[in-house]
Amino acid sequence: MRGSTSPKSPGDSAGSAGEFELIAALKRVIDEATPAPHMLIGIGDDAAVVENAAGGATVMTTDTMVDGVHFRRGEADWGDVGWKSAVSNLSDIAAMGATPLHALVTIGVPADVSTGDMEQMYRGLAAAFTEFGGGIVGGDVVSSPVFFVTVALTGQVRMQDGVPALLRRDAAQPGELIGVTGTLGGAAGGLQALAKNLSTPGADALKRMHYRPTPRLAEAAILVEAGVLCAMDVSDGLAGDLEKICSASEVGAVINVGSVPAPPELRAEFGDDATAMALSGGEDYELVFTAPFDVMDRLLARHRKLFTHIGRVVSEPDRGESVLLQAADGSEFSLERRGWDHLGAG
Amino acid sequence: MRGSTSPKSPGDSAGSAGEFELIAALKRVIDEATPAPHMLIGIGDDAAVVENAAGGATVMTTDTMVDGVHFRRGEADWGDVGWKSAVSNLSDIAAMGATPLHALVTIGVPADVSTGDMEQMYRGLAAAFTEFGGGIVGGDVVSSPVFFVTVALTGQVRMQDGVPALLRRDAAQPGELIGVTGTLGGAAGGLQALAKNLSTPGADALKRMHYRPTPRLAEAAILVEAGVLCAMDVSDGLAGDLEKICSASEVGAVINVGSVPAPPELRAEFGDDATAMALSGGEDYELVFTAPFDVMDRLLARHRKLFTHIGRVVSEPDRGESVLLQAADGSEFSLERRGWDHLGAG
Repeated sequence: MRGSTSPKSPGDSAGSAGEFELIAALKRVIDEATPAPHMLIGIGDDAAVVENAAGGATVMTTDTMVDGVHFRRGEADWGDVGWKSAVSNLSDIAAMGATPLHALVTIGVPADVSTGDMEQMYRGLAAAFTEFGGGIVGGDVVSSPVFFVTVALTGQVRMQDGVPALLRRDAAQPGELIGVTGTLGGAAGGLQALAKNLSTPGADALKRMHYRPTPRLAEAAILVEAGVLCAMDVSDGLAGDLEKICSASEVGAVINVGSVPAPPELRAEFGDDATAMALSGGEDYELVFTAPFDVMDRLLARHRKLFTHIGRVVSEPDRGESVLLQAADGSEFSLERRGWDHLGAG
Repeated sequence: MRGSTSPKSPGDSAGSAGEFELIAALKRVIDEATPAPHMLIGIGDDAAVVENAAGGATVMTTDTMVDGVHFRRGEADWGDVGWKSAVSNLSDIAAMGATPLHALVTIGVPADVSTGDMEQMYRGLAAAFTEFGGGIVGGDVVSSPVFFVTVALTGQVRMQDGVPALLRRDAAQPGELIGVTGTLGGAAGGLQALAKNLSTPGADALKRMHYRPTPRLAEAAILVEAGVLCAMDVSDGLAGDLEKICSASEVGAVINVGSVPAPPELRAEFGDDATAMALSGGEDYELVFTAPFDVMDRLLARHRKLFTHIGRVVSEPDRGESVLLQAADGSEFSLERRGWDHLGAG
């Protein structure tokens, strides 16, 4: 389980403190109840992992988009809403190192949404599953005063020597290196470009990153094959999500700020703000992972275009902050608890 | 996929004609897309059925409750909302002849819903899974202007001689007998009792049937064991749901109206209306099934308290109506397309 009020999205008003308290309370209720059968990983990772009848493992995830919270009707194209709804789930499957299988799609439909709108949204969903794997097997259609779409998606875990080959949040080891796929901050840039009504070619490219993200399933398969054990997807921002890896693995992380890859369009449109956006912008759906030196070395040698080395895992530091951001000159900046606020000389 | 605007629930305003059109349109989009891998039964039954890695089969279902559509905050106890949300999904698993496994729970939480309310709702969910099997493995918590809860639930299918032993909607054969579990109309009676502010012990018993329905998982296991192939759960009303079996199986059905079991409290509170309520009232979550004469005979001999014989499957009649309602004197009444309107001499 996870909260996804998406504080980077427009119109969000839920306090994240209340959200964390709520999730903790619900987790306690589940922990006190009779445990689900055959559960390997429960609440706390990108997806749940359950043992299946074959002795293999299946991952299960679910993600919801609500009008006015995660997007705005009228601003967004319905096809893009469907695409992103599929991708946010596909990304969770990638983050576990699995391959997508079966989706259930539930839509809450207000009276003023047309059948044509919903067909368009479904085409966006179907296009994402066709491109990245998996498919819709069923769902539910309900009346609702507000539009929402919930996707529940299963995924198949690869087995290696009879053991599920999973990417987990709690498997980072001090001494490992930290890498990411693709570039970061593009989706946040697209959101800013929309808010500021920018319409340069660069701004349009960023908007497309916001509306049509790519789940990193191919990259996840390469990571699993290479023996990587620890990863998650960057949905709430690199620095904040890396904190979750640190917390689950009981380690610290040091990020070389200058190494974090941002799209060229982000630098062109937002100049020096691009770095902060790459560090804290959400919904890029890239993967952040940790790997021993030799594994990272091989990954970069073979797939330099897919992965970037951005930092290292350390023993948890004594001070409160688990993620340290380091400038090229070695000076360090602590990350504010509620996100990245500024990038200046400390 | 299925619509569940629950026309028997308070506050529903969606036209069911528009709902059917929407579902048909979305089904076309899915049919045109790349098919999901390993799919055995797709849209059109109580749940989807997919082949799993072991060569076995898994069912997947999802069901949603929206405040103001499927229940009303303030009237309903939060624990009951959770219970019913679990049961509507557990009932789909029963209707396929499977046993419940893993649930993902998504809640859309408005700012004025407290953590305590949500804990209570989760306790209702957990209580149902503890009593009937399955358990919560994950989920999502999102901000939403309206409260909703979506459960996605998987189930394990029994294998018989290497073949999945499923209960399906499309397996009814002319000449078979029709049976139901439990009693019908109790939930509709409870809803009426609430609307009319009745507070007799009988009315309270009916309200409890409305708020705390039982999924017929034990009965489903007996049906599968006995060799029954065709069943569904009664969520929209016996007559309307039986029409879906007739449509999927290309058969007709004749119901002996006097044999349809209603709770004694329903007759006590609503007199002659009880029969119509038992025929058309929704959300009882009983099972309706068809079985050859000898199978029904054995079921009734061994489990007379669990099952009632209410009619027979016939070749589809030439007239439009697939479900005929027959009085004790042999006179027949056709069911109105939009539900049961009256039970008088034709």
